[in-house]
Amino acid sequence: MHMNWQSEMSMLAGMVDSRLAELLPGTQELPHELVEAMRYSCLAPGKRIRPVLAIASCVACGGTKEAAIDAACAVEMVHAFSLIHDDLPAIDNDNLRRGRPTCHVAFGEAVAILAGDALFALAFEVLTEMDCTAEVRIKCVELLSKCSGIRGLVSGEAIDIISEGKPVSAPTLELIHVRKTGALIAAACEMGAVLGGGDSGAQAKLRSYGEKIGLAFQIADDVLNVEGDAEKTGKSVGSDAERGKATYVGLYGLEASKAKAKSLAQDAIGLLINFSENELLSELALFSVDRIV
Amino acid sequence: MHMNWQSEMSMLAGMVDSRLAELLPGTQELPHELVEAMRYSCLAPGKRIRPVLAIASCVACGGTKEAAIDAACAVEMVHAFSLIHDDLPAIDNDNLRRGRPTCHVAFGEAVAILAGDALFALAFEVLTEMDCTAEVRIKCVELLSKCSGIRGLVSGEAIDIISEGKPVSAPTLELIHVRKTGALIAAACEMGAVLGGGDSGAQAKLRSYGEKIGLAFQIADDVLNVEGDAEKTGKSVGSDAERGKATYVGLYGLEASKAKAKSLAQDAIGLLINFSENELLSELALFSVDRIV
Repeated sequence: MHMNWQSEMSMLAGMVDSRLAELLPGTQELPHELVEAMRYSCLAPGKRIRPVLAIASCVACGGTKEAAIDAACAVEMVHAFSLIHDDLPAIDNDNLRRGRPTCHVAFGEAVAILAGDALFALAFEVLTEMDCTAEVRIKCVELLSKCSGIRGLVSGEAIDIISEGKPVSAPTLELIHVRKTGALIAAACEMGAVLGGGDSGAQAKLRSYGEKIGLAFQIADDVLNVEGDAEKTGKSVGSDAERGKATYVGLYGLEASKAKAKSLAQDAIGLLINFSENELLSELALFSVDRIV
Repeated sequence: MHMNWQSEMSMLAGMVDSRLAELLPGTQELPHELVEAMRYSCLAPGKRIRPVLAIASCVACGGTKEAAIDAACAVEMVHAFSLIHDDLPAIDNDNLRRGRPTCHVAFGEAVAILAGDALFALAFEVLTEMDCTAEVRIKCVELLSKCSGIRGLVSGEAIDIISEGKPVSAPTLELIHVRKTGALIAAACEMGAVLGGGDSGAQAKLRSYGEKIGLAFQIADDVLNVEGDAEKTGKSVGSDAERGKATYVGLYGLEASKAKAKSLAQDAIGLLINFSENELLSELALFSVDRIV
């Protein structure tokens, strides 16, 4: 008999948080301000969707949860790094994140920039120390570095800010979302598949699953930025519109955006049929759009 | 017969620049502003000391120049990333770097932050694609990530800015310099040794050589910040004192600082006796302090 999936997800998120607390530099390390900022941002309350996806993908390929835990933490470190930098005054200028002051509000801009950098470096260091073959470790480094850089996370954020206040075409909006949200989620799933011993077919399917739900999550976020409340999302509502940010809702409207997100989630679930342990991945696909139903 | 070392150094720097130009995203990639900022900062005129050290260390261990060229470029990308972030208004607030406007002055703060991030990500991506065993590649990723993060580059910068305007003890100053300058230089030398097939003894010796000349370079920079001219250094003179930065000169005075740098360079040269092709490394050790003699 299976745990219900919400309990399983909380359990996995708890496992990730415990391991993150171990992998992050301890409070005795110098300089204290930098360490505190890293821990503050990376251990901030959150659903840990990306690391949970990495673990669930590993399990879906027949691996253990433990085999993916360090890579899952590395993914969360990259996520935290990107949030810290995106929130900076020069970029999105957000004061509220996960219901708490953003890193630069709490620690100052200089420490926030460097804490993001240090988390990014640590993510790669953690991958090099995993207990698996050099081939698997270097594959994970490859996936994590590619999804972060000029064709991934950082690039998506750059296109997003460069596009602010300008009319944005559908292909540009898609590019922003694929890179800014989809790339890291897809990499998390593919890393899980690699660590779980999945063959190249399984790796490709879980990567594609990740791309689809990554986009679904982003569209759902756009919807929540219009319809949600700050308490629930931990972010300022209406901030996208205020800044003239390109969003799905702005381009397609609320209803079409919701329909698109749901159809992506269904497509993602369709990719899971040949995996035996696919229940959590299915539930996560549904969860990606549940919030906007 | 050997080339004179200055010619050899220029030749190697040219080789690094050509390869960097290939490894950096091309100008057709999106978003153009981000790509231009990455290329502007990473291809800015410079002596390419760090990549040259990686190549010279590889050659000293019996490897080819070509075996170390991509790792050398990755080291330069990390160096460029750290310069971009250090120059930001929230950190050192420098407008001039290598004789040209700093990245944020030329491209705006948001693009500069993200260009630094993208260069950092690319450095790791480049290491994963090197033409050598997975063991050697992952070892290089380990060295580069460790020297960059919470016990390296970023940490040294953080301790430096946190210490600004406060009295700084000798151990703290040493920690700043070891991390901010020494760590990447030492890692460059050790990566070269690994790529050249050096055994663990050779790796340790070249790492130690790198630590010593890294510190010598930093002390020389402190001296030049007092004695140099902006045209020669490409940086504003006297800027350290203005900002109340901790420096060797501030702590020990000019003469003792010069003597310390020279003695470090001599110690570094002493580590090279058992390497056959050690001429360039010896010359680079002398060069680290030549500027202040």
